[in-house]
Amino acid sequence: MKKLVRTGLMLILLCAFLQPDAAFSKEDVAPLSTESQMCIGCHASVTPGIVSDWKNSRMAKTTPGRAKEKPDLEKRVSFENMRKELADVVIGCAECHTMNPEKHEDTFDHAGVRVHPVVTPGDCAACHPAERKEFSENIMAEAHGNLEDNPLYGALVTAAAGSLKFSDMKLEQKEPSDDTKADSCLFCHGTKLKVKKTAGRETDMGPMEFPVIQGWPNQGVGRINPDNSKGSCSACHPRHRFSIETARKPETCSQCHKGPDVPAYKVYSVSKHGNIYNSQKNSDKWDFASVPWKVGKDMEAPTCAACHISLLTTEDGTPLAQRTHRMNDRLAWRIFGLPYAHAHPQSPDTSKIVNKDGLALPTALDSTPARDFLISENTMNKREETMQQVCRGCHSSGWIKGHFSRLESTIEETNAQTLTATKILQEAWEKGAAKGPSENKSPFDEAIERMWAETWLFYANSTRFASAMGGADYGVFAQGRWYLTGNITLMVKLLELKTDLKQKD
Amino acid sequence: MKKLVRTGLMLILLCAFLQPDAAFSKEDVAPLSTESQMCIGCHASVTPGIVSDWKNSRMAKTTPGRAKEKPDLEKRVSFENMRKELADVVIGCAECHTMNPEKHEDTFDHAGVRVHPVVTPGDCAACHPAERKEFSENIMAEAHGNLEDNPLYGALVTAAAGSLKFSDMKLEQKEPSDDTKADSCLFCHGTKLKVKKTAGRETDMGPMEFPVIQGWPNQGVGRINPDNSKGSCSACHPRHRFSIETARKPETCSQCHKGPDVPAYKVYSVSKHGNIYNSQKNSDKWDFASVPWKVGKDMEAPTCAACHISLLTTEDGTPLAQRTHRMNDRLAWRIFGLPYAHAHPQSPDTSKIVNKDGLALPTALDSTPARDFLISENTMNKREETMQQVCRGCHSSGWIKGHFSRLESTIEETNAQTLTATKILQEAWEKGAAKGPSENKSPFDEAIERMWAETWLFYANSTRFASAMGGADYGVFAQGRWYLTGNITLMVKLLELKTDLKQKD
Amino acid sequence: MKKLVRTGLMLILLCAFLQPDAAFSKEDVAPLSTESQMCIGCHASVTPGIVSDWKNSRMAKTTPGRAKEKPDLEKRVSFENMRKELADVVIGCAECHTMNPEKHEDTFDHAGVRVHPVVTPGDCAACHPAERKEFSENIMAEAHGNLEDNPLYGALVTAAAGSLKFSDMKLEQKEPSDDTKADSCLFCHGTKLKVKKTAGRETDMGPMEFPVIQGWPNQGVGRINPDNSKGSCSACHPRHRFSIETARKPETCSQCHKGPDVPAYKVYSVSKHGNIYNSQKNSDKWDFASVPWKVGKDMEAPTCAACHISLLTTEDGTPLAQRTHRMNDRLAWRIFGLPYAHAHPQSPDTSKIVNKDGLALPTALDSTPARDFLISENTMNKREETMQQVCRGCHSSGWIKGHFSRLESTIEETNAQTLTATKILQEAWEKGAAKGPSENKSPFDEAIERMWAETWLFYANSTRFASAMGGADYGVFAQGRWYLTGNITLMVKLLELKTDLKQKD
Repeated sequence: MKKLVRTGLMLILLCAFLQPDAAFSKEDVAPLSTESQMCIGCHASVTPGIVSDWKNSRMAKTTPGRAKEKPDLEKRVSFENMRKELADVVIGCAECHTMNPEKHEDTFDHAGVRVHPVVTPGDCAACHPAERKEFSENIMAEAHGNLEDNPLYGALVTAAAGSLKFSDMKLEQKEPSDDTKADSCLFCHGTKLKVKKTAGRETDMGPMEFPVIQGWPNQGVGRINPDNSKGSCSACHPRHRFSIETARKPETCSQCHKGPDVPAYKVYSVSKHGNIYNSQKNSDKWDFASVPWKVGKDMEAPTCAACHISLLTTEDGTPLAQRTHRMNDRLAWRIFGLPYAHAHPQSPDTSKIVNKDGLALPTALDSTPARDFLISENTMNKREETMQQVCRGCHSSGWIKGHFSRLESTIEETNAQTLTATKILQEAWEKGAAKGPSENKSPFDEAIERMWAETWLFYANSTRFASAMGGADYGVFAQGRWYLTGNITLMVKLLELKTDLKQKD
Repeated sequence: MKKLVRTGLMLILLCAFLQPDAAFSKEDVAPLSTESQMCIGCHASVTPGIVSDWKNSRMAKTTPGRAKEKPDLEKRVSFENMRKELADVVIGCAECHTMNPEKHEDTFDHAGVRVHPVVTPGDCAACHPAERKEFSENIMAEAHGNLEDNPLYGALVTAAAGSLKFSDMKLEQKEPSDDTKADSCLFCHGTKLKVKKTAGRETDMGPMEFPVIQGWPNQGVGRINPDNSKGSCSACHPRHRFSIETARKPETCSQCHKGPDVPAYKVYSVSKHGNIYNSQKNSDKWDFASVPWKVGKDMEAPTCAACHISLLTTEDGTPLAQRTHRMNDRLAWRIFGLPYAHAHPQSPDTSKIVNKDGLALPTALDSTPARDFLISENTMNKREETMQQVCRGCHSSGWIKGHFSRLESTIEETNAQTLTATKILQEAWEKGAAKGPSENKSPFDEAIERMWAETWLFYANSTRFASAMGGADYGVFAQGRWYLTGNITLMVKLLELKTDLKQKD
Repeated sequence: MKKLVRTGLMLILLCAFLQPDAAFSKEDVAPLSTESQMCIGCHASVTPGIVSDWKNSRMAKTTPGRAKEKPDLEKRVSFENMRKELADVVIGCAECHTMNPEKHEDTFDHAGVRVHPVVTPGDCAACHPAERKEFSENIMAEAHGNLEDNPLYGALVTAAAGSLKFSDMKLEQKEPSDDTKADSCLFCHGTKLKVKKTAGRETDMGPMEFPVIQGWPNQGVGRINPDNSKGSCSACHPRHRFSIETARKPETCSQCHKGPDVPAYKVYSVSKHGNIYNSQKNSDKWDFASVPWKVGKDMEAPTCAACHISLLTTEDGTPLAQRTHRMNDRLAWRIFGLPYAHAHPQSPDTSKIVNKDGLALPTALDSTPARDFLISENTMNKREETMQQVCRGCHSSGWIKGHFSRLESTIEETNAQTLTATKILQEAWEKGAAKGPSENKSPFDEAIERMWAETWLFYANSTRFASAMGGADYGVFAQGRWYLTGNITLMVKLLELKTDLKQKD
């Protein structure tokens, strides 16, 4: 390839100017900006995949101006005003990668243009300000800081990923390296992108200088960007199609919501909704791109997006739910327990919560919720009503009531099981069988402590996710109640062995 | 939505009568009953999703009368006679939800009609009596009672899902609540639906009275229904499409057959059959709706339904297998061991089995099968022959023989491993390292007992499912033999530690 | 069916001769050989599924002669010369099943023809010699011997799958039977096919004699065939479609690469590539059959094949990567650690490696690589460059550099964790808490040894696969670092318990 393209930058740029429509088929008549034509001039051969990808996108086929003219229910943009030169071109490379250059620490001179590699929610907000604002109020947007700024979670990160050394029958664990964190927890939570320096490199177009960005690549939902914005739209709308179809499909959510701590995708896939989705999704009837998304017409069973995010209407256009990128607008409970399931936090920044133990956890070790930092019962009821309005698209009130009352019972019972596990751990700490926070030790690094963490993080969570979506065996043998009770039993057995041994001293 | 529809029941009903065909496109000329038109009059706005869903169904497009006229091999109904007013309308809401009202404990007055929310196999039998009868002779139809009426399984349910309290270094476990059982084991096995009372509720159509049904919602295969029938056709033919496509796809079976106890779906998905299904299923050639289902023409690899249920023919219509909803018609062995794999039970009601230990288990602790309650070798051979007739659609006799002889070897060897695990458990009971049934204690609630249960319930089962379908790593590292042997090794280690400790007393 | 077809061999053969085109639609005008017509004459009713299957294949529609005329980039065959009678017919049953009869131990007389049931890479090489040669230089082609000829791996196979007996508080483990090995490890690694005898059988065509083949059926990648060739093309190109579409889809790879030891498919499915594949693969734009495979045009995200095997070009035909069936041509590291991740072995036959411990492992217990048997740093760099050329289809150099540098860090850190686990094991051996190779015992059969094996085989591997593909939670809670560190912690705990007990003696 090198040979073919190494004919020099100018020649290629010239070709691009002479054939401005090369990137488009006849029917796509919306104009591409001169700047984006320049980009494509080279990148069609340098990174051909993403150029083709983008050509298939809606971005390449419509302009902000036209997008804004759509009827309200069909609108995919939320801006009020836009400067004319942006409003009347399709959204190409330059429109995003040169947006707000002064705000971007990663901006650099590239073939005479001020370009930044990392496109951020701050950039996307030019056309989608409402979605960006909602997302920023989303607990996910704070996923980096919520993890990194909370010393207790820091101890969990270290226990999980820190390097272990063994000598004299003892283990010592170091904090994980930046690379390891970026490759593990921060893969989903988002890294902090930091421009370290620039580096020269020989390219097909001659020598060039590029910024070297620490923490890159990453597309975590809570990424700290070079323009100080938070998150990454491409976490769910992957580059360079940015497709609403993809975001509406549960496989997208599975990237971060499939593991034992948050088995949402696994549970969905064995639920009745998942069953219908998986067996019918490719029928001609389903339309994953339609806005609004019409229940019964465009799809016969909800995906993650349908229940949590999308603008839903009936076939005749009556709204069932408003679009929201603040994913907990329809969620009363946070069933992801820390360590107990609880009412949703008020602020997306959970590192500021102080519970009655003085820790930045939404619930205390004895299960008391940090009420001042959580939403009120009144707000919970309102959110549940918003969610149930979606359910009512297909289910009767009796069905819905039965379902949610069972979920509340499961929340209560799994919280009780977590409390039992916690009491065993506290007994272990008291008996000296393990060393916890009162001795300035991590509560996550010893065998019995890890079992405790798995009790709530894996098994109580799995059980609740299964209850919320109808996940059958994920509430029993597939990391559900069988493991929840089994782990508690094993904790007692381990404590017994240690205690019996001590008594023999 | 409320605003739009709260214009009163009568007005909407009036519209429904004036536009009787509103629910149909031109080509669907089969008539909808007046009663169903009434239902749709309101429910098109109250639960629009399921109305659209139903409109896409075969039920909405043909009448029992026409369905019966099909050639035998293409027939989807099995009734002999039907009263004329039902035979000549499409099957709409009222046809099912007002069927046999006097038999239904959940029947209530709804807008002047005697309606029941729960449609049962008893109702579906109006058109599908053969399928209903076969299903009722199916071990799945008895899934509720087989679990709930067997005290030993009751102990397993409690061990898995019962609430644990910890004090004085001891755990106490209560029986799980009804909600917990409905949310766990009975999710698949089926709840017992019981009308508790009626409750008034303000609806979009004004105040209404509805039955409150304990155990609802549920779509378990062994559900005990308000008309005393057993099972739920929507477990595999989900409302309100009731689609044969969905039932023929393995994702449907995955709802209950994916966990570590019955990993059929997981195993299938890595098998060669699953590989071909997953990579070719959306090609134009595959037809999941065709009756009969033609091997090689409509599909290139079998799904769960193809091997276990469907009417299969060759491309030219020569039958390979008859349709059956008695899923073990083609199964000699029950590879789901309790605790050992065994010949299939004669009766679908397994709670009546008495083995030589006097327990309601198909095999004794020492692996002796409860022969009087299991099918004979002769019947086993006949069933295997029926199954192999399906295999012969694509495989030579040498292939088939090699495959099944390997499966039999695996059944024998995994049973032997289970026996080894059982001997260790018995040693633990004898040595006082755990307390079992002879001391009136549960055989499932202590650490070593749980490990024993996982040996056969998870690992021996997984190994056998992998053997039956060609599941590769599910027979080794993915919950297969590695865990089977590993768990046995760990049982001995745990017993050793306890025994060594005791000897130090 | 028996009735229908039992009209005798001759009659059916006659029909076949009279209607030579029966198997084809009008547009398929390429001729079928007389021999294959004979096969189909009977097998269209004896094994109708595979005949239909084959009719849908490319093999049934084109001839080697025509395939060779394609432009180089579009060519799917690699032979130089071919005898005329094979070049000008479509590839039917007889072309493959009667190829090289004298080399095939499984050749037998079948209806007057010398037929062999097992088609091998040696047979496929008639048209695809380059692919066969490459594959034979592939570590997979040696998968049978690499496992069976290495005594250390033999100990692992026995620990995993050998039958356990318990008496006097001791476990004894036998080597697994041939059936068990064929059903477990050799399912993927490949069995050794051995013709034992022939056996008569009554068929629809009268009595016939067939070879009885030990180890059959099997489609493992390292199968030892009756013509002494190695491997099975149908492992990835399943019979009788042999479809490139199937081979290009990751579900195919999942057959052997999904378990906890090699969770490549699982990791892929939650990666961004997998997300795009899973949500877009059925769009009209994707073309899994196109040769060459055009990045951005035929697919928007790579599958396993795209990165490791396929001939890739840009939309305009500029090559990004050459087709290779030597799957490590683009791989510098072997991230599947034995027990440490290491530079790829030079020879596909790894049973000949001798490390500094004198064992046939690519790395020593103290992590020193067996450098003489592994590729040089220079070769590693070249291979990485070849792989990165694929990445460059869509990603910038900064992105690629960041990704690969993170992967190298993860390789280093997981190797360090494995070393820690190994030191604990060695301490256990020294303290007599377990018995290892120095006492002529297996290093895999005791509880703490199994935990050690899981540390590198499951958790370090999973972490590295996640790092290589962006697998998020598979690097943390889903069998990743959390289990890696947790297992090490538990090893120390178990060792402590044993040691404490000993000290009390």
